[in-house]
Amino acid sequence: MHTPTTKAMFTEMSGLVIQTNPNDTVAIVVNPTGLKRGAVVMREIVLIEDIPMGHKVALKRFEVGDAVTRYGQTIGFASRVIAKGAWVNEHNITLPQPPDLKDIIYTPTDFTRSAIPAAQDLARYTFQGYKNLDGSVGTKNILGITTSVQCVAGITNYIENKIRRELLPLYPNVDDVVVFNHSYGCGVAIDAPNAIVPIRTIKYIAQNPNFGNEIMVIGLGCEKLRPERLLPTHEIAIDASLPVLNQPSILYLQDARFNGFGEMVQGIMQMAETHLQNLNRRKRETCAVSELVVGMQCGGSDAFSGLTGNPVAGFAADLIVQAGGTVFFSEVTEVRDAIHLLVPRAINADVAQKLKAEMAWYDNYLQQGQADRSANTTPGNKGGGLSNIVEKALGSVAKSGTSPIVDVVSPGDKIRKKGLNFVATPASDFVCGTLQLAAGMNLHVFITGRGTPYGLNMVPVIKVSSNSTLADRWHDLIDFDAGPVAFGKKTIAQMGWELFHLMLKIASGEKKVATDVLGLYNDLVLFNPGPLT
Amino acid sequence: MHTPTTKAMFTEMSGLVIQTNPNDTVAIVVNPTGLKRGAVVMREIVLIEDIPMGHKVALKRFEVGDAVTRYGQTIGFASRVIAKGAWVNEHNITLPQPPDLKDIIYTPTDFTRSAIPAAQDLARYTFQGYKNLDGSVGTKNILGITTSVQCVAGITNYIENKIRRELLPLYPNVDDVVVFNHSYGCGVAIDAPNAIVPIRTIKYIAQNPNFGNEIMVIGLGCEKLRPERLLPTHEIAIDASLPVLNQPSILYLQDARFNGFGEMVQGIMQMAETHLQNLNRRKRETCAVSELVVGMQCGGSDAFSGLTGNPVAGFAADLIVQAGGTVFFSEVTEVRDAIHLLVPRAINADVAQKLKAEMAWYDNYLQQGQADRSANTTPGNKGGGLSNIVEKALGSVAKSGTSPIVDVVSPGDKIRKKGLNFVATPASDFVCGTLQLAAGMNLHVFITGRGTPYGLNMVPVIKVSSNSTLADRWHDLIDFDAGPVAFGKKTIAQMGWELFHLMLKIASGEKKVATDVLGLYNDLVLFNPGPLT
Repeated sequence: MHTPTTKAMFTEMSGLVIQTNPNDTVAIVVNPTGLKRGAVVMREIVLIEDIPMGHKVALKRFEVGDAVTRYGQTIGFASRVIAKGAWVNEHNITLPQPPDLKDIIYTPTDFTRSAIPAAQDLARYTFQGYKNLDGSVGTKNILGITTSVQCVAGITNYIENKIRRELLPLYPNVDDVVVFNHSYGCGVAIDAPNAIVPIRTIKYIAQNPNFGNEIMVIGLGCEKLRPERLLPTHEIAIDASLPVLNQPSILYLQDARFNGFGEMVQGIMQMAETHLQNLNRRKRETCAVSELVVGMQCGGSDAFSGLTGNPVAGFAADLIVQAGGTVFFSEVTEVRDAIHLLVPRAINADVAQKLKAEMAWYDNYLQQGQADRSANTTPGNKGGGLSNIVEKALGSVAKSGTSPIVDVVSPGDKIRKKGLNFVATPASDFVCGTLQLAAGMNLHVFITGRGTPYGLNMVPVIKVSSNSTLADRWHDLIDFDAGPVAFGKKTIAQMGWELFHLMLKIASGEKKVATDVLGLYNDLVLFNPGPLT
Repeated sequence: MHTPTTKAMFTEMSGLVIQTNPNDTVAIVVNPTGLKRGAVVMREIVLIEDIPMGHKVALKRFEVGDAVTRYGQTIGFASRVIAKGAWVNEHNITLPQPPDLKDIIYTPTDFTRSAIPAAQDLARYTFQGYKNLDGSVGTKNILGITTSVQCVAGITNYIENKIRRELLPLYPNVDDVVVFNHSYGCGVAIDAPNAIVPIRTIKYIAQNPNFGNEIMVIGLGCEKLRPERLLPTHEIAIDASLPVLNQPSILYLQDARFNGFGEMVQGIMQMAETHLQNLNRRKRETCAVSELVVGMQCGGSDAFSGLTGNPVAGFAADLIVQAGGTVFFSEVTEVRDAIHLLVPRAINADVAQKLKAEMAWYDNYLQQGQADRSANTTPGNKGGGLSNIVEKALGSVAKSGTSPIVDVVSPGDKIRKKGLNFVATPASDFVCGTLQLAAGMNLHVFITGRGTPYGLNMVPVIKVSSNSTLADRWHDLIDFDAGPVAFGKKTIAQMGWELFHLMLKIASGEKKVATDVLGLYNDLVLFNPGPLT
């Protein structure tokens, strides 16, 4: 719908800019070292000052109050006169109001898209995954240890190291042991209305496909969050070919049978061995692309994110969805200002309503904390050319591709439908990633312009750079460079296909992502809109 | 003031109960296996049902609405008729309203206390600590690495391991390397009014005395929380005898001089070596008790906590304060119901007002989240005999001893005065511990009845058990058993002195606490009352 048609325009002074939409009144500087005053762009516009890479050139003279247009949308209004060829940034444009949710009326859209092949043509693409009894498919084979309260973290950290050192080498088919030490479980108002968000997040993370239903829950004993609440309640279809019914187990440190630390460790190690034996029997099998559950996220964005990385990821998202798979995008404050473009993409009026309801919930949440969505943009975003949250949002939603939105999932909840979902989360990278894990993702695509070492240990994280400068410098941290799109060297569709193929390879375990090679993993962070006590 | 005078009363059937105050209408069962129906306690009361250890016996018949009294205070009202000798618990008493802050008028109190020796008699007690240039004293010698944003956590975790493995063995005077990976820094409303709480917490943790001002700040580059904000702003008195002026340093992963992960790691390792060289020159010196900054906390409490562990810790607290040292207690929801007992202990009307203001702030915070202080008690508290938050609070404040309260410190802030401080925090163990570290603690006393493996890597945590059953079972996790007090084997004063001596030994590094021996450490968790974006 609003995937940019990147037209790179070379000028006589090699001034390279991108105008995303023919109606745009600004264009983005592509040259890695920026452009100097006097440079000529788009054949006739002379820069009246130096403008860094990723920043905006005024394509016309703006009077005070004139709309500044990018992606064909108003991203702000001139707060003073801006000359043609001047640098447009957060200092000379104002922030528009977000679209009023009441004004957005749902009307169904036609979803015919020429660039995406028919579903049957995508059927030949497969990956090698771990099929679970509950129908989900893993992309890794991990012994998961979750906790009902952070009090036990000292011991679970100890155990994680001990298992990795002493037991993992004996079970070569198991990729890793991962402990989820979160900040919840006690010292919280467990019956407050918003408590459901962190509780279901912990519960559904334990059900992530990469744990193969072999989760261990370590509890203390006296905590408010009872470990039993974290066990899956869904029915597991029993597959007779599997020798042991995979099931989770619970252990309490305060259990009277443990005389001290040594016996607790022994108890956990014994429990771990049973689960490792079961996990070690898992084998990769050929799976349809429809079994992929891909979480799309961007972080440390720059002005190229919306031109290269996000549209490329969006194209790959369209391919996955067209093949019957699941993709979700998130980050409420980064879609809020583009919500008028997303509501028409809802599959029906109910989904449109749920989309607006999540925006309204977050508007209210921020207001309670005396903040608004303008708190989203970072110094790094601005340094990278994103003047405000409107411009950021318009680029951010490009990673959702162009598919219809089939469902909306509230924070911490699990997806219910295949296809493109909106999974409501804060935009904070590690909080969004945590909630996307709970939603059931088995593969993560993360687009960055400024660069972040972000990685998760539960699922592979494919890191896409929006510009080649970053990809070159962070050669060992970036998995896929979408930068060539900015220079017109490759099209979004070409690179979207490349990313799609890489995703299948990574999901199959044929290739490791950079953070898995280096062992770089962020801690998960819960979204807890409820109070501590 | 309300330190219980534990009179253990043996009866002919060995029914052992404790009545804390002669006016109490309930007493606590001490026998480790509980008491059976028919047991006689206090010479004439026959139990009409089995009552577990730590639970309450009715010492009189209660009509509906009669006050139930423990610690000489009303902990609830009978919600039905309760026979003499019956089990009093959360099912037959109601929760009273918390004291109305408006009704509590400050009148100064006389603080003459006979059991505590005069200050000059305590002057001979010392410990061996690390004196810092800013006047603070460390009890450990740690290379601290803090972060301005959680994005960098993958790399800081990697670095922590690498430093521990490759560098620490070369610097034998350095105890450890500790990374503080928190959940703040980006994806947050950094200008929201409550953002100051997490920001100053991170800042002041970096100034903890155990880091000796040699902190390293690892930033990403594009985050909202600028690393510069985390550096100390206070003046450091330069000591000419020290060869190098200790000072913190900052490193950004996005720094253009780093070509990829390998060079980042190299850059951090080089920076770490400089700091390790400085830290390695630190030597323990004889320090007065007045240099101790002791954080008192209880968690996983039971009915004995208020009878044994907390009063013993309170006695030791009085000794430290009398010797000119600093002690603080915390946990707003666990003092809220005893606030009428604390306000009179304020040193002046201003401190009394600040104490009430922190209660009011928290009342409002909980109300916004549609919760109240009754959300505090846990299933474990109740299992251990604490019927509600009033009873829990009355026992909890015993660990503050009987000294005047000289100052009140808001969440995340740093203490300004020696003596007994109230450091306002949530009661959540790891959140409270995190805020107490920010307040400047160099020694931690943690009292537990149900048992928790809680430990911190930045300061030694002395774990005190409220009952010997726990201390026996968790022989390798408990440092000090206050259980003998319940059986009248030792007095509170005797055990308070024992704990005081242990504290000096631990602070001197002469003895290691259990969690340091085993290497069990909880992750720190920030208190962020502001919204995520």
